[in-house]
Amino acid sequence: MRIDKARDYVVDNLQYALNPSSIAVVGASRYPSKVGNKVVAELLEWGYTGKIYPVNPRADKVLGLKSYHTLKDIHDRVDLVFVAVPAHLVTAIVEDAIEIKAKVLVIATSAFKEIGREDLQNKITLRLRENKIPLIGPNLVGMGSPYNHFNCGFIPYLPVPGPIAMISQSGANLLAALGTSQEDHFGMSFFVGLGNKADVDFSEFIEYAQKDEHTKCLAIYIEGLDSPEAFVAACKKVTKPIVVIKVGGSKIGVKAAFAHTASENPEPDQYYDDLIKEAGAIRAVTWQEFLDISLAVGYQPPLKGDNIVMITNGGGAGLLACDHFERCGLPLHELSEISPLLATRMRAYMPMFGSPLNPVDIAGTASAIQYKGAFKQALRDPAVDGILGAICPTAVTDVSAICDAAIEVYEANKELNKPFIMICQGGKECHDAILKFRDHGIPAYASAEQAVNAIAALRKTAVK
Amino acid sequence: MRIDKARDYVVDNLQYALNPSSIAVVGASRYPSKVGNKVVAELLEWGYTGKIYPVNPRADKVLGLKSYHTLKDIHDRVDLVFVAVPAHLVTAIVEDAIEIKAKVLVIATSAFKEIGREDLQNKITLRLRENKIPLIGPNLVGMGSPYNHFNCGFIPYLPVPGPIAMISQSGANLLAALGTSQEDHFGMSFFVGLGNKADVDFSEFIEYAQKDEHTKCLAIYIEGLDSPEAFVAACKKVTKPIVVIKVGGSKIGVKAAFAHTASENPEPDQYYDDLIKEAGAIRAVTWQEFLDISLAVGYQPPLKGDNIVMITNGGGAGLLACDHFERCGLPLHELSEISPLLATRMRAYMPMFGSPLNPVDIAGTASAIQYKGAFKQALRDPAVDGILGAICPTAVTDVSAICDAAIEVYEANKELNKPFIMICQGGKECHDAILKFRDHGIPAYASAEQAVNAIAALRKTAVK
Repeated sequence: MRIDKARDYVVDNLQYALNPSSIAVVGASRYPSKVGNKVVAELLEWGYTGKIYPVNPRADKVLGLKSYHTLKDIHDRVDLVFVAVPAHLVTAIVEDAIEIKAKVLVIATSAFKEIGREDLQNKITLRLRENKIPLIGPNLVGMGSPYNHFNCGFIPYLPVPGPIAMISQSGANLLAALGTSQEDHFGMSFFVGLGNKADVDFSEFIEYAQKDEHTKCLAIYIEGLDSPEAFVAACKKVTKPIVVIKVGGSKIGVKAAFAHTASENPEPDQYYDDLIKEAGAIRAVTWQEFLDISLAVGYQPPLKGDNIVMITNGGGAGLLACDHFERCGLPLHELSEISPLLATRMRAYMPMFGSPLNPVDIAGTASAIQYKGAFKQALRDPAVDGILGAICPTAVTDVSAICDAAIEVYEANKELNKPFIMICQGGKECHDAILKFRDHGIPAYASAEQAVNAIAALRKTAVK
Repeated sequence: MRIDKARDYVVDNLQYALNPSSIAVVGASRYPSKVGNKVVAELLEWGYTGKIYPVNPRADKVLGLKSYHTLKDIHDRVDLVFVAVPAHLVTAIVEDAIEIKAKVLVIATSAFKEIGREDLQNKITLRLRENKIPLIGPNLVGMGSPYNHFNCGFIPYLPVPGPIAMISQSGANLLAALGTSQEDHFGMSFFVGLGNKADVDFSEFIEYAQKDEHTKCLAIYIEGLDSPEAFVAACKKVTKPIVVIKVGGSKIGVKAAFAHTASENPEPDQYYDDLIKEAGAIRAVTWQEFLDISLAVGYQPPLKGDNIVMITNGGGAGLLACDHFERCGLPLHELSEISPLLATRMRAYMPMFGSPLNPVDIAGTASAIQYKGAFKQALRDPAVDGILGAICPTAVTDVSAICDAAIEVYEANKELNKPFIMICQGGKECHDAILKFRDHGIPAYASAEQAVNAIAALRKTAVK
């Protein structure tokens, strides 16, 4: 339901959604195949340290924990009430939650507005608003934070810790990102699926993210905006970079977005383009770009100018990058134009058939020592605004040693505050290097175009 | 050097470049850090079963093999001569190769036309043309085929076997694809790096690929075309689908392409767009798209119409796909328009909060049995031209069981000859499913947009 602006009581209470000291899980089943069972199982598995109160009218124990027949039987402070019972039972649960003075209510259950039951959804929402209890959902997957070992919902993974707060209207895409986080070390501070967002809206999680100490950037997936003014106002208040993907702009997508999260999209896609621009956020087009850009702005400082030096041992990666830089409106400059002295110095780190043009091609024979020298010279040159490195594994490339050398140079020159991005294109050793780079705060990607998208986004954060 | 059309003697002799019964490696070093040593080591490691003759004036044994001081000392048939000695020594080797009647000469050595030594490169080329010995290179990484356990060059990996012949002017990008092949089961029939392509040109490998029994599609990476007419003519002769990525179109890319593989790009990018269209090939823009599209057209039949049905357990993946289908000029149609009966039938495989719109959202609770039923109904409906499935791992999704069910339905209905593409977006179990799908000939991808790009390419192969 529409709000004019982010409400303070909601923003304040969201701490109980992401770092509660106690949780009641209503619909906590004894049967492992049921979602209500999974919620408790995942809380336990990922090491939640607060109190868990399963609620189930027909059980005394769930997964070894004492279970309560109703919320009112708990007789203890309950921060978060997580509801996973069929829609027709929810109204009664809401009354109980009000009575026990829960701090936040999460309704995971589907079958509300998205299948035509708008009245029921609105009735519950208004009842909770009267009592100043924020409602997250309904029709959502859950939320969590790796910093709090907190995984609350129908969520098979907890992400690796990192700088990105992901606020997603889609559960499935959020889960995909969490899986990617584990596999590809896409580090997150917290995540939440908003679902139908009957009450708590984007703007409120956006303001919460600004206050969250672990969050360095916001990654927001939108299917529809009920309160665009509140969204823009919240984004403007936030000093951290914001990346947005807005879906459902296609003809059939408008209908699919309604069927999915009851999102209404009466406006053309250009409206969202303008709105996201006004909000000072960066819009991503594809899912991959959304993740790649978020990683970059989460870990790296803004790119203050367009003097980027690319250092590669493979000309092909360099060419893919050149073309994509131009496509992104950020064409590479020749090194001799950026810094004639640097162009001369670079010769020391390459064989005679290398090229100091930019991309600087230090050739397929490049060693970790050559990479290190080239990176150091480029980073320390005052004319250079940012570095893009690429490792292409030839038969003589020691990917792991080059990775370590690059991390060493990066860390020794961190105070220069220049973006440092890597491409590692190849097989297992490249994927391992990507993970290691990311663990050290260096955004690393498997293809040139992904890295260039990341750099283009860092340029945008400088001109926000 | 320019050719008017693919030369028959070259196309015939390329079998010795990819399936030689004997190889001489000139510059085979005893020292493991040297590239000349790696070439022999990789041939042995990957199980090459032909004869290997190391050539080294200062060695009698290399990696346990009898070594020869010159090519002329071999006194046995040599199909392929692989040269990895410095450029100034190459002229003498060429004369020896002519004398022993080698079938193909490969010069891996760099420092020819790309650093200004065009005269030397041309002299060698003309000398070999006089003697009808195809020259591959110089300045290249190598070639190979997993079907022949043949890895010949500075190449740390052999790809997994599959339908894609990759013909690449860039060594580094070729190596990246080979690494991806191992990690992500991007199956290849053969691969070759062309480097400066002084003599043997794209057109000749294109015609060879048409004859190669394992090749079902061609993936071609171009930095510059010396003989565009020969390229177009060869593509037109080939009945297998061809995917092309052409780089170096950006302002700085033109210079970088010359520095890399001595490629000259006097024409604007639109020229290549038109040329690739005339050739009947599909042009990819980014590297990821290049791989994704190649995989699809290598494994799947053309998409004969635009009635695609998408079946997903996550609305978010469906929305990303909808929007991207529209971006690709192939908007999804509502299922009730494609087949009203199918829309009704689909209801049997989803809960009440699912949606039969298209994307068909069978919801986060979907089981392998529900997926199987939905896939079967959609595949067998005569109005349906192709299927896009998506698996999003919720806490109750059995990704592995759904993967097996999908493969079963696909294999049982193969004679229908309809494209079947999968999205598996998430963590490790999704990556495992992607590998299994690919091993069964089903192109599977980690994001919706990649899969939609693949389908759009399959539509193009139908209208070639």
